[in-house]
Amino acid sequence: MCDSSCNNLTDHLGVQSDLQLFDAQFEELVAELTEEDLRDPVLADALKRLREVLHYNAPGGKRNRGLSVIGSLRELVPPTKLTQDDVQRALIVGWCIELLQAFFLVADDIMDASLTRRGQPCWYKREGVGMDAINDAFLLEGAIYRLLRRHCRGQPYYLHLLELFTETSFQTELGQALDLMTAPPGQVDLNRFTMERYKAIVKYKTAFYSFYLPVAAAMYMAGIDSEEEHNNAKHILLEMGEFFQIQDDYLDCYGNPAVTGKIGTDIQDNKCGWLVVTALGVMTPEQRGELESCYGRHDDACVEKVKALYNTLQMPTLYHRYEDESYQRLQKLIACHAQNLPHAVFLNFAEKIYKRNK
Amino acid sequence: MCDSSCNNLTDHLGVQSDLQLFDAQFEELVAELTEEDLRDPVLADALKRLREVLHYNAPGGKRNRGLSVIGSLRELVPPTKLTQDDVQRALIVGWCIELLQAFFLVADDIMDASLTRRGQPCWYKREGVGMDAINDAFLLEGAIYRLLRRHCRGQPYYLHLLELFTETSFQTELGQALDLMTAPPGQVDLNRFTMERYKAIVKYKTAFYSFYLPVAAAMYMAGIDSEEEHNNAKHILLEMGEFFQIQDDYLDCYGNPAVTGKIGTDIQDNKCGWLVVTALGVMTPEQRGELESCYGRHDDACVEKVKALYNTLQMPTLYHRYEDESYQRLQKLIACHAQNLPHAVFLNFAEKIYKRNK
Repeated sequence: MCDSSCNNLTDHLGVQSDLQLFDAQFEELVAELTEEDLRDPVLADALKRLREVLHYNAPGGKRNRGLSVIGSLRELVPPTKLTQDDVQRALIVGWCIELLQAFFLVADDIMDASLTRRGQPCWYKREGVGMDAINDAFLLEGAIYRLLRRHCRGQPYYLHLLELFTETSFQTELGQALDLMTAPPGQVDLNRFTMERYKAIVKYKTAFYSFYLPVAAAMYMAGIDSEEEHNNAKHILLEMGEFFQIQDDYLDCYGNPAVTGKIGTDIQDNKCGWLVVTALGVMTPEQRGELESCYGRHDDACVEKVKALYNTLQMPTLYHRYEDESYQRLQKLIACHAQNLPHAVFLNFAEKIYKRNK
Repeated sequence: MCDSSCNNLTDHLGVQSDLQLFDAQFEELVAELTEEDLRDPVLADALKRLREVLHYNAPGGKRNRGLSVIGSLRELVPPTKLTQDDVQRALIVGWCIELLQAFFLVADDIMDASLTRRGQPCWYKREGVGMDAINDAFLLEGAIYRLLRRHCRGQPYYLHLLELFTETSFQTELGQALDLMTAPPGQVDLNRFTMERYKAIVKYKTAFYSFYLPVAAAMYMAGIDSEEEHNNAKHILLEMGEFFQIQDDYLDCYGNPAVTGKIGTDIQDNKCGWLVVTALGVMTPEQRGELESCYGRHDDACVEKVKALYNTLQMPTLYHRYEDESYQRLQKLIACHAQNLPHAVFLNFAEKIYKRNK
């Protein structure tokens, strides 16, 4: 296999990049799950459904989470010690993370009454799907454990991965519960939007599965299973996850849609985002009254008023101050806590996040 | 502890029955999951939600599945070898099965647009719940793995239980997918109602989790993990599960509501049940035409016409013939396949089913 410096492109010898390997692995995995795994002929129609659900919902994202497993594993294990089977298993475990995300997104879209996802109609909005999408979400989750069983059973880290996936799922579900009760669609109540609540939602709903999970999976696969090392990595990665989400919230309002590729709707959607939470902490009672009458409304004039208020409160300045502080904190955390872990595991990850900024 | 002959009632020495122990275990388990397990104070509101979801959705059923774990374990392990901790773990694993069922029922009720469950409004129908019930279902599922981890980690059968629960969940989800595509609410198409499809739905959607899962869990806890013994048990238990469901379908139409405690609506709900599938196999084209115009309608006259047709076709006779054959088949299966397993494991189980008949 190629070393870590040539992973992003097919090199001149025709060696495939991790991204190419990752994408190629998907079709193989679909075939396994729907043709080779359960051969009971009476299941044919159910497996056909699973294939459609997988194709519609699993690919199409940025795949950063899934790719981070093999990326991290390459930092943790010298290239000479990484077999082709190790690489394949890391790709599969990466897809398990993408499946976990697909499971959550299919369900979240129903709960949020969303219309589109990744540039296409949400799965439950498709003709003839509707609430059956709930069972389809379950199938996506179920596929994770089929794949782990098929590919990692017998590996010394199999049990660790099972616990890691079930635990991370539960944390994400608790985060979603917090989010749903903090910002119920259509019910504006700014009293619920505190920085403590905001950080809890980010940590549980996003950071565990997006940041800790892929690196933790790679650590277990590399034979690193001490609680101390996992806690250290968790500390760093959850901080990174928080930064990532705050940046995402900032870009939702201040990003250039030509660059980010999406038009933000956090204000209209009554989201408990970093901007509104931070603004609430620095505004006058009059400004709060204005915000209360404008936030969470699908009305362009209202949205513009909220944005004008953010500008008055100098949110970009506050954001950049936060960004600098967070970056410094992260560097210190990596220096103090990474200890035995190669710093590149974290820095590569951070690099991708900071790239988003451009 | 008391021996297996005194498990159903508190005996004169004040020893509690398994049913009493099982029910008492529930409050303890809720406290563990919501107070002792995750102590991060920012999660307080999410854990409060979990407590509500557990209380509303987990108890209130017949608890046969959950009780079967300790019931089966007592048949597999001599009383003197069963410690109090073993009993407690079996009660907890039993509750995990009840939680798995609650997870499915909360979601199924949304997919089926049901209104009531166990004599109260469906969870998603409660004021302020709605589609948030989807995440609540996930939390019920997540609680299973928290409990297994807390109570069974370190036991030699821990990994077996994790695989058993994830595999059984996937089988149930595939069964639900088959059911949804065979009898979509509101779309009557009798061509889809074949005996092969009916049996596949029963096997995957109901029999695995209701019959094989509790006994298999007890077998693993008793140290029985050979694939052959599990396949033998599966064979018998899936046959029993099929019988149970066919009986349920029969009683939906022919049971006495004063005895069964419920008024059947399978005809109105366009269910792919044993009666309609069997009737389709013996009716004339004219009768089929009449059935097509009446099945799946919420109209009393239509329902009466279907019932009259069932009587004309002598469905009670066909059912009792099936019942006798199934009973004979089961006895033979137990004689041939139970081998090293005490027959009482299966016979006790069967007894509960046949009791339902009265």
